Amino acid sequence: MPSGPVKGPGRIDLKILDLVKETNFPHLNLFSVRYRDTRKKEKSWVFASRSEDPQAFKTDTTPDAVVIVPLHRDKQRLVIIKEFRVPLGGYQYGFPAGLVDRGEKSVEAATRELWEETGLTLVKVLRQSPPVYSSSGMTDESITLIYGECRGEPSTLANEASEDIEVIMLSTGEAAGLLNTPGLKFDVKTWIILSTFAATGKI
Amino acid sequence: MPSGPVKGPGRIDLKILDLVKETNFPHLNLFSVRYRDTRKKEKSWVFASRSEDPQAFKTDTTPDAVVIVPLHRDKQRLVIIKEFRVPLGGYQYGFPAGLVDRGEKSVEAATRELWEETGLTLVKVLRQSPPVYSSSGMTDESITLIYGECRGEPSTLANEASEDIEVIMLSTGEAAGLLNTPGLKFDVKTWIILSTFAATGKI
Repeated sequence: MPSGPVKGPGRIDLKILDLVKETNFPHLNLFSVRYRDTRKKEKSWVFASRSEDPQAFKTDTTPDAVVIVPLHRDKQRLVIIKEFRVPLGGYQYGFPAGLVDRGEKSVEAATRELWEETGLTLVKVLRQSPPVYSSSGMTDESITLIYGECRGEPSTLANEASEDIEVIMLSTGEAAGLLNTPGLKFDVKTWIILSTFAATGKI
Repeated sequence: MPSGPVKGPGRIDLKILDLVKETNFPHLNLFSVRYRDTRKKEKSWVFASRSEDPQAFKTDTTPDAVVIVPLHRDKQRLVIIKEFRVPLGGYQYGFPAGLVDRGEKSVEAATRELWEETGLTLVKVLRQSPPVYSSSGMTDESITLIYGECRGEPSTLANEASEDIEVIMLSTGEAAGLLNTPGLKFDVKTWIILSTFAATGKI
């Protein structure tokens, strides 16, 4: 593998020393980690985790959540949702997604969440990422991306009461138009994939 | 704009009622929001924020951070870093990135962070996203993606003591090889963009 320069003079590998759970909420908590930096100084780092057993000290790589990138087979449209996101205080454009239930496989979670959020049926998985990290400076949250084909008619009748969702199916031109509309809020994964779809018709 | 089905019977728009700061750490905190769900029930949602003034109640859209997608002009390689991430307890493959300092513009932050983390100089911005959201179910963190051309020789001499970084420059074939190596940890944005780069040579 191609590699870059060696570490600067006097520098050593960074090392984690211990972990403390700082809060006690049911679904999301802060943890602080004590670590030794590359100059041998002890420092601390605070991060958020959905897990009782954060990544910093575990080897299990089950993803916290799945994100579905659904292409509608018959209509040849990319399916996204406009959803109220409480932490943003408003609506965001994103892909259907949801937490993986205990014991559930990623594709099962993707099939369930796509149906609950959009009424559409996942009929073929095109490709799948390993668990990848949302923002590893502030959280160990990991997701699996599942690119797939779906079919059916959109419906939000299976939404939960905490969900406020509109299903949107986009051609390449409509994707470009949405991306160029000022003031809209996009999920980062959705912005990147929509940009490629708008330019190439591919996901 | 194309739109999907209307809300189910008896459903109303979700609405935020109030916000409480639950912790008091310097760089990251938990907040709880009380909201009215689509069935008119009051519920709460806990999320993490880097801000003292979270998105849920503000209109300012300065991003928390910038992420740089750097193409090396002379070498025609995509530049990524292998970096120790404390919340993951290990090394992750990702793009150079960092928090935007107060009063700093996104492109200034991108230029500074690229130089500090890789020793490379940003010479041309190819395109830029609006502030987009990392994982809006659990945080209001927003980032601006800056795609650009860079030049120079990689160096990690300007790394901070809390950074443990290796600079990696990838051809399309090397990107494909890295993505297919089992057990590596990738940032989600990097995984998506590397996949497109490996398949098409484009970013």
